[in-house]
Amino acid sequence: MAPHKAPDSSRRSDRSRRAIYDAALALVGEAGYRRTTIEGIAARAGVGKQTIYRWWPSKAAVLMEAFLDLATRAAEEAGPQAGGAEYGIPDTGDLAADLKLVLRATVDELNDPLMEAPTRALTAEGIVDAKLGAEFVEKLLDPQLALYVTRLRAAQEAGQLRPDADPRIALELLIAPLTHRWLLRTLPLTHAYADTIVDYALGGLAPRP
Amino acid sequence: MAPHKAPDSSRRSDRSRRAIYDAALALVGEAGYRRTTIEGIAARAGVGKQTIYRWWPSKAAVLMEAFLDLATRAAEEAGPQAGGAEYGIPDTGDLAADLKLVLRATVDELNDPLMEAPTRALTAEGIVDAKLGAEFVEKLLDPQLALYVTRLRAAQEAGQLRPDADPRIALELLIAPLTHRWLLRTLPLTHAYADTIVDYALGGLAPRP
Repeated sequence: MAPHKAPDSSRRSDRSRRAIYDAALALVGEAGYRRTTIEGIAARAGVGKQTIYRWWPSKAAVLMEAFLDLATRAAEEAGPQAGGAEYGIPDTGDLAADLKLVLRATVDELNDPLMEAPTRALTAEGIVDAKLGAEFVEKLLDPQLALYVTRLRAAQEAGQLRPDADPRIALELLIAPLTHRWLLRTLPLTHAYADTIVDYALGGLAPRP
Repeated sequence: MAPHKAPDSSRRSDRSRRAIYDAALALVGEAGYRRTTIEGIAARAGVGKQTIYRWWPSKAAVLMEAFLDLATRAAEEAGPQAGGAEYGIPDTGDLAADLKLVLRATVDELNDPLMEAPTRALTAEGIVDAKLGAEFVEKLLDPQLALYVTRLRAAQEAGQLRPDADPRIALELLIAPLTHRWLLRTLPLTHAYADTIVDYALGGLAPRP
């Protein structure tokens, strides 16, 4: 954005951005999406609201970037084996093992208190606000789903996925049950559950001969 | 509640209840859960707010009953074949056909404009409010899930479901993908999608020998 800035100023800008992300996520988790304002984020981050308006056009834009940043950090911490967004889902040749690894990491992310409140707030708002929901899906969810499509296509080429299966639909059998449990809090979301979903989805519910 | 009421008064009371349900669902769909009030429901239904307080202790209680009533009416309209809550999921001996029938009916319900806005509003609020969410699951969702458990157990006894499958988890492979598409609006929710989910879940994503 400001290519000729001195390194000092650029570091200060990075610190401000991180403070703004943290403030935005904390506020939305505490107060909900609608009661979160640019003014409130600025006050909490200790910056002027013009600083925020200089970088982002709207509250939704700040929050999307804050979530992207959070997801990137979580993926970096989890490391390449857990299938962070930058790395894709691992391909060891064992589809079931690779899916269990990545779905267990998803369980950990969803159960992480730092992620939970802001993710719930944004998801809930996207459910009633179709425009925000579409942005959420396009910017945050679809890039993750694309990783599953890539891994499932590779499995199909390796003969580990039914040749007639549509990977874009197949992935929904894997991730939707986790999302459903987490969003609706029907039953505990555990690693054992993630493993069972992979076993049922790959093996099928009908008896195998 | 008032066993010796004359029929006329009882019919009037039924009409008031229906008017209150309709007002509650319309309001929550338009304004969201938090901005819906007992006063607002009373004004819209054309009754005094004491009438509402006489029958229900809280806004949440009115809305839960309004949803139960809506679901019952939808099930009655769909008839026994579509697996209304009073009838259970049909058991023709063909598990795939029975599941497709009931999941197609679920697709129709979720896509019904009358259901959509209020259901989204209540679900969104349950996602951020754990207490309301638990009530929603206990009173509205769990009774529906129990119908799947019953049908899947019968299938297990008939040798159409893996003997080692837990029906309470198996049902999540069937219903969660539909809920996921509907809540997050990722892709269109159609009968063809419901059929594909049943095929993938029963047959499994791994190739069959």
